[in-house]
Amino acid sequence: MNKAQLFKLIQKKRSFLCIGLDTDIKKIPPHLLNEDDPVFSFNKQIIDATHNFSIAYKPNIAFYESLGSKGWESLEKTIQLLKKYEVFTIADAKRGDIGNTSALYARAFFENLDFDAVTVAPYMGSDSVSPFLGYSHKWVILLALTSNKGALDFQFITDTKSNKKLFEEVLEKSSNWATSDEMMYVVGATQAEMLKDIRKIIPDHFLLVPGVGAQGGSLEEVAEYGINKQCGLIVNSSRGIIYASQNNDFAATAGEKAHELQQQMERVLKQNMLI
Amino acid sequence: MNKAQLFKLIQKKRSFLCIGLDTDIKKIPPHLLNEDDPVFSFNKQIIDATHNFSIAYKPNIAFYESLGSKGWESLEKTIQLLKKYEVFTIADAKRGDIGNTSALYARAFFENLDFDAVTVAPYMGSDSVSPFLGYSHKWVILLALTSNKGALDFQFITDTKSNKKLFEEVLEKSSNWATSDEMMYVVGATQAEMLKDIRKIIPDHFLLVPGVGAQGGSLEEVAEYGINKQCGLIVNSSRGIIYASQNNDFAATAGEKAHELQQQMERVLKQNMLI
Repeated sequence: MNKAQLFKLIQKKRSFLCIGLDTDIKKIPPHLLNEDDPVFSFNKQIIDATHNFSIAYKPNIAFYESLGSKGWESLEKTIQLLKKYEVFTIADAKRGDIGNTSALYARAFFENLDFDAVTVAPYMGSDSVSPFLGYSHKWVILLALTSNKGALDFQFITDTKSNKKLFEEVLEKSSNWATSDEMMYVVGATQAEMLKDIRKIIPDHFLLVPGVGAQGGSLEEVAEYGINKQCGLIVNSSRGIIYASQNNDFAATAGEKAHELQQQMERVLKQNMLI
Repeated sequence: MNKAQLFKLIQKKRSFLCIGLDTDIKKIPPHLLNEDDPVFSFNKQIIDATHNFSIAYKPNIAFYESLGSKGWESLEKTIQLLKKYEVFTIADAKRGDIGNTSALYARAFFENLDFDAVTVAPYMGSDSVSPFLGYSHKWVILLALTSNKGALDFQFITDTKSNKKLFEEVLEKSSNWATSDEMMYVVGATQAEMLKDIRKIIPDHFLLVPGVGAQGGSLEEVAEYGINKQCGLIVNSSRGIIYASQNNDFAATAGEKAHELQQQMERVLKQNMLI
């Protein structure tokens, strides 16, 4: 999916909601544990109930990896199911390694699993990111400013030469490695007011914004400071949707929560004259 | 395995060699492709031929993940085999995410696969690393200074407040998160002379040193600047050993290459009066 197609999808669904499939076998409703593949069953019901309200799904790879080869099979089935819907798919993997190794992670997520995008960590620099680039209609989503407390440990270190913070350096340097047609950034919603300055560096890029809901960010603030002329925002919610109910009605409840967020997003898109 | 046991193993085997199992199905000898699990067959023969000369093995997770659930099965069989030998096992995964997600990566590598150590990326800070800590006799190996060109992009950014480089900040801060009994660092061999300054910050920690051989670092230099009173070095070689021959004699040739490195390491240990 390219940038124009992504914006069209946002306009069509009147939503820029991404649903995080952080599917923990210890948290899903117990009746699913009798199924052959409880994780996939959970995902399937969540996807069926929410896909009209969301434009993207983001399986969090750790949750599948923690179940070994069986978890990897659940992930394979989940991406195959997602491919049947008109949605953007993100492998939340936060990978990054020397070139020949990043190339194999790219093969895993882009060739074998056919995700549209993968999240990548910037610490090892350009040659750890570049193997993920150059795939037609595929995207790197690079970590810039994350939504956790630990973001304060290193991401705000200010460079003596440029007088810029580490996350700003990441944005500036990496925006030379690829255009806004194949790179996006992770920017946490807990620091919404910082989006103003971030938009000065990267006005045109899409941002993947975690941390709305469970982690405390506000959709209105994110939109106020972060929206651009092609929306430029994919806002993620995981736990707030998929674990809204832990009973037999979990899928219907997830659908309601996703619908609520979609309606808020529709208002934002209208206010900004994007639909 | 704790630190004292690791040092004893180094003394017993007269080696501080780690062998990187970067097993690429496209590079292994073609006759293995007829086997049920070519990747595991390759690993088994490599391990059988080299375990007398090495103290550690480091499967590079990307290579297994690139084969999907089948690759994950090869990894599961490989770690089960490694557990039969007296070796330290490292999952080279470079993971790191918000707390609840890092906890699941820790579950994957420490509980399910029972690795002794996992490599972790520092960008997201303390709460992305801490879920890997607190496992008895398990280790975090945190990226500090990597051996690739891209290391220059961000790791050398100098903080205006502390006047320290990013990788030095990572060493200093993280050495307060855990002792040298459960944390090690990745420090690339291509920058061996920098080990001198690094040892001022972390005199007692073990360092995992990639980049000797194929990536151009020298064992003598690494030892000169990096060795400490419990050796404190685990030097990795991957391609230089496992792909030394691509014919039917690949395992025997790998054994010879590992033996050569072990002999060089034995000389270094003697020179430093550690054996």
